[in-house]
Amino acid sequence: MTQPPGSGAASPVTLDDVRAARRLIAGIAVRTPLKGCDALGERIGGAVHLKIETMQPTGAFKVRGAANRLLQLSPEERRRGVITVSTGNHGRAVAYVARRLGIRCVVCLSSLVPANKVAAIRALGAELDVGGENQDAAMDRAEGRALAEGLVMVSPFDDPAIIAGQGTIALEILEDVADAGTIVVPLSGGGLAAGVAVAAKALRPSLRVVAIGSERCPAMLRSLEAGRPVAVAEHESLADSLGGGIGLANRFTLALVGEFVDEIRVVGEAAIAAAMRFAFHEARLVVEGAAAVPIAALHAARFGEFPSPIVAVITGDNVEPDRLLAILRAAA
Amino acid sequence: MTQPPGSGAASPVTLDDVRAARRLIAGIAVRTPLKGCDALGERIGGAVHLKIETMQPTGAFKVRGAANRLLQLSPEERRRGVITVSTGNHGRAVAYVARRLGIRCVVCLSSLVPANKVAAIRALGAELDVGGENQDAAMDRAEGRALAEGLVMVSPFDDPAIIAGQGTIALEILEDVADAGTIVVPLSGGGLAAGVAVAAKALRPSLRVVAIGSERCPAMLRSLEAGRPVAVAEHESLADSLGGGIGLANRFTLALVGEFVDEIRVVGEAAIAAAMRFAFHEARLVVEGAAAVPIAALHAARFGEFPSPIVAVITGDNVEPDRLLAILRAAA
Repeated sequence: MTQPPGSGAASPVTLDDVRAARRLIAGIAVRTPLKGCDALGERIGGAVHLKIETMQPTGAFKVRGAANRLLQLSPEERRRGVITVSTGNHGRAVAYVARRLGIRCVVCLSSLVPANKVAAIRALGAELDVGGENQDAAMDRAEGRALAEGLVMVSPFDDPAIIAGQGTIALEILEDVADAGTIVVPLSGGGLAAGVAVAAKALRPSLRVVAIGSERCPAMLRSLEAGRPVAVAEHESLADSLGGGIGLANRFTLALVGEFVDEIRVVGEAAIAAAMRFAFHEARLVVEGAAAVPIAALHAARFGEFPSPIVAVITGDNVEPDRLLAILRAAA
Repeated sequence: MTQPPGSGAASPVTLDDVRAARRLIAGIAVRTPLKGCDALGERIGGAVHLKIETMQPTGAFKVRGAANRLLQLSPEERRRGVITVSTGNHGRAVAYVARRLGIRCVVCLSSLVPANKVAAIRALGAELDVGGENQDAAMDRAEGRALAEGLVMVSPFDDPAIIAGQGTIALEILEDVADAGTIVVPLSGGGLAAGVAVAAKALRPSLRVVAIGSERCPAMLRSLEAGRPVAVAEHESLADSLGGGIGLANRFTLALVGEFVDEIRVVGEAAIAAAMRFAFHEARLVVEGAAAVPIAALHAARFGEFPSPIVAVITGDNVEPDRLLAILRAAA
């Protein structure tokens, strides 16, 4: 017996969850605009719109999931506070939302994290717990403190509330482009891809959801091929936000991505750099490497391959400006 | 007998006009997001939000006024079509809206206009009428064709419908930041400054509206000092969108800016370049010179000088990417 996608009682995240998230996060996350990109549309044969998530308060979509998670804390959990380990967009989003809600927030970092990232998280009002030689050590400490101090651990992706929060992007896209044929999203742990796919396919089953990973860290792709979460060797990538595995104890995103996402592709470093340059020159956008992967994938697509209109989610702008300038110079 | 600001029957643009514009343009102009800018806030002593008008379809706020103007054409005027002379953000906005509405649009250009600008306007579906040695010649030809062919001339700023359309920015700002203390806008012909000031002062009389011009072309400032429209010598500026006078036959914006705008300041080229660099590095935004003048003025302000929260309107991103890169490199 089959159930309509995303509406099954057995699914950990449903369209109703995403709709509830939308109402809940309205005062914190921004409703982001779409911007047409004719230069890309002409190249691939279709109308292309960019969903500009860089307009979110911390410059990335992650504030949607973080807001939906923290706003569902019980009064008692709010009093205790939250803890997380991300030094990137998720950590910034959790710190930002926690400050907005007046919730204590601890971020655990290894001592290898660069000073500018430490400063950015401190500026958002989070308590820092710095130490240990790698991310695993920071995670161990976070889990220890969560247990000892009753802090609520906030996962970057493998949590139904996070997934539903990220899925609100699909509701906005389909309000603005009711006849969307394709949505293209970056893929890492799968919270964004799962949330967007659950909501989009429930509202418009014919819509194609394509998720794009970095070939330097194809953890979700390899896990889907293996039928279980697998770790992959990680290599430094321009799309640093796509790094990290999906968690060997993955509970939600692997199954949801497998069920609802139509296709996964990966792109390489040169294509990501070219897409960052394209975003600057043709769309006048500053984008981080992870946010450029949908553009890179569209560049590599066959003409007319994706059903139009096509919406590419531009997820974040947290790139070091000098690093971006170096990438822009490399093409000059 | 005094009347509440912006609500007087004698005023050519009232808060009600701006509210009506908002309803009218909703399907064409985007409701743009605000983005906090802590780096600027710390520097000047207050909370600073940037109103990101670069998210509009043609990359600049001008689509608001153009939409409000064209949507008020009579059915018969729609059939005849519109004509304008701007090669910049206004011309692009009129061409964009005309295409959306299926209205014929002619843009008159001098033969000196660079090929890339000509191509951009052609790409938006407008008919081009290229010829003559300067902007005045293009204007003469446009007026001739408007008379001969019954085309409706669409002024870039000195028109109540244009002013009311630009004023919709203030409604959105005060929805998002109800306690705004200061709004800072770029100043050229005065359509934006007038519209924003009329609406903002009607809704919140204590709010301070500060308009910033380029010192290379302070036409509005000199006209206010003279008490009548005056022409000023024009010099090339990074803020090219702020060039051009206010029109010696100015009917609306001079009086409205004089009545409703609290203060006018001008900024120089070095300050504009520094503000473009700041926008890129600290807010990860691509902005044209004209859009950087509010940031330049805030940089030059005394600490705590402007009532907080402060909203700076970032009006457009139509800068040649290679020119921006040269400006960014100049500081490296």
